[in-house]
Amino acid sequence: MSLAGLSINLATVREQYDFRQAVEACLKQGITAIAPWRDQVAKVGVDEAARIVRANGLRVTDLCRGGMFPATDAAGRQRALDDNRRAIDEAAALGADALVLVVGGLPAGSRDIASARAMVRDGIAAVLPHARACKVPLAIEPLHPMYAADRACVNTLAQALDLCDALGDGTGVAIDTYHVWWDPDLFAQIARAGAGKRILAHHICDWLVPTRHMLLDRGMMGDGVIDFRSIRRAIEAAGFRGPQAVEILSETWWQRPGEEVLQTCIARFQTLCRLDG
Amino acid sequence: MSLAGLSINLATVREQYDFRQAVEACLKQGITAIAPWRDQVAKVGVDEAARIVRANGLRVTDLCRGGMFPATDAAGRQRALDDNRRAIDEAAALGADALVLVVGGLPAGSRDIASARAMVRDGIAAVLPHARACKVPLAIEPLHPMYAADRACVNTLAQALDLCDALGDGTGVAIDTYHVWWDPDLFAQIARAGAGKRILAHHICDWLVPTRHMLLDRGMMGDGVIDFRSIRRAIEAAGFRGPQAVEILSETWWQRPGEEVLQTCIARFQTLCRLDG
Repeated sequence: MSLAGLSINLATVREQYDFRQAVEACLKQGITAIAPWRDQVAKVGVDEAARIVRANGLRVTDLCRGGMFPATDAAGRQRALDDNRRAIDEAAALGADALVLVVGGLPAGSRDIASARAMVRDGIAAVLPHARACKVPLAIEPLHPMYAADRACVNTLAQALDLCDALGDGTGVAIDTYHVWWDPDLFAQIARAGAGKRILAHHICDWLVPTRHMLLDRGMMGDGVIDFRSIRRAIEAAGFRGPQAVEILSETWWQRPGEEVLQTCIARFQTLCRLDG
Repeated sequence: MSLAGLSINLATVREQYDFRQAVEACLKQGITAIAPWRDQVAKVGVDEAARIVRANGLRVTDLCRGGMFPATDAAGRQRALDDNRRAIDEAAALGADALVLVVGGLPAGSRDIASARAMVRDGIAAVLPHARACKVPLAIEPLHPMYAADRACVNTLAQALDLCDALGDGTGVAIDTYHVWWDPDLFAQIARAGAGKRILAHHICDWLVPTRHMLLDRGMMGDGVIDFRSIRRAIEAAGFRGPQAVEILSETWWQRPGEEVLQTCIARFQTLCRLDG
């Protein structure tokens, strides 16, 4: 059965492979869609990465990541804008479906989350004209509330969609099961996102019980408590049929051979995540 | 200045003191309100605990905790109901302002959070007549979404208030800064809770960056990123003026002398949390 519905976020195998090796390993398994991180692209060079993508007919479901807008002072915020414009250029060079934004948390020493959220809105607004000119949609990714302080102060799909409504064309959302599975408002907000044509990416990753580390103990689909099919069903009903991108930051899986990780991703995707399986 | 606005949740000093010692240590510092846990009460016996409370004119701001309703089978759910009725009796014996409900997460092996949430609603509904008869308000405590799987599948104030609306008189909410500080909808929901006279308890505890353990690395006020006064301002504006109860589960603070912990709670409460300071 075709694996066109499966993308691999290359962070999932970042300890095993560089960009070129990861592409080869994916192709060997029949996977033709990827979502690289900027540091992985930078190591090989964005032009060479783009050449590899084109030469192999790969789909780049998203580039990770822009964002990190809040900063203590104006100079810091300006650096963030400059960096986001470079990220947009890289996403354009790779032909990515979207640039994912992990928006950033509180500036050092701050206890003012409302202000951080305003910086995020202003930051996205500032880079949006460049993103539109480059035809790179910006995918705001709500992160789990446990990352509100240090990683992303956009923490629910509703909040991300409110931002999209305020910012307009060229913005949308990345829906990662790991970050949103708990949300009592999830299905209503997925429907809202679909109605606004806001869904740009669908990431999959499981929530483990117990979770031993807040960043690096994410789970392979099936090893945790998330019902992937019911979320996918809602996302497809909302009109998004793009690939599901496996993004697993896990010290456990980083210690396994890359081929085993990719084969496990495929097997779990087939049995637990896809609707046409 | 009076410490009438301060309560100590006895879990904060659970490794240092038993119930009787904790009461003595609080009184020595001028603290006259406490929030004990059931296991602490059970060790001294509920009758003796109630006698100590009355003899010292203590206010019991809440008893922790009932809840844990979801279970795999009907027998497990029935055991939870029986235990909640006993918790209500204990709260009544202590004259507690409310019984806090940590509602429970997914039953073992379940991936159906909607079903767990339905079990929570049905469980509270089943014990509510007993709570009303005993004049013990039930304080539904939304827990941080990182506990959705294993501790509480009620994860936002909005969700808790929806439950109160469905269940009616005798239900309300406990608002713990640690669990809700990140919520973009927090201030709107505090106002809603006030309008419905639903606020039964206000717990304080800080969010540390980094957080090294998902359960036992909670922060003393001032050591993290939460703006306590702005939340308290909203809670008082919503009509709740009861004590702020310090509840800190922390392997760090459990290793310090109890007297130092209590004195630190007082100092931080005075400088960071109270509005009349």
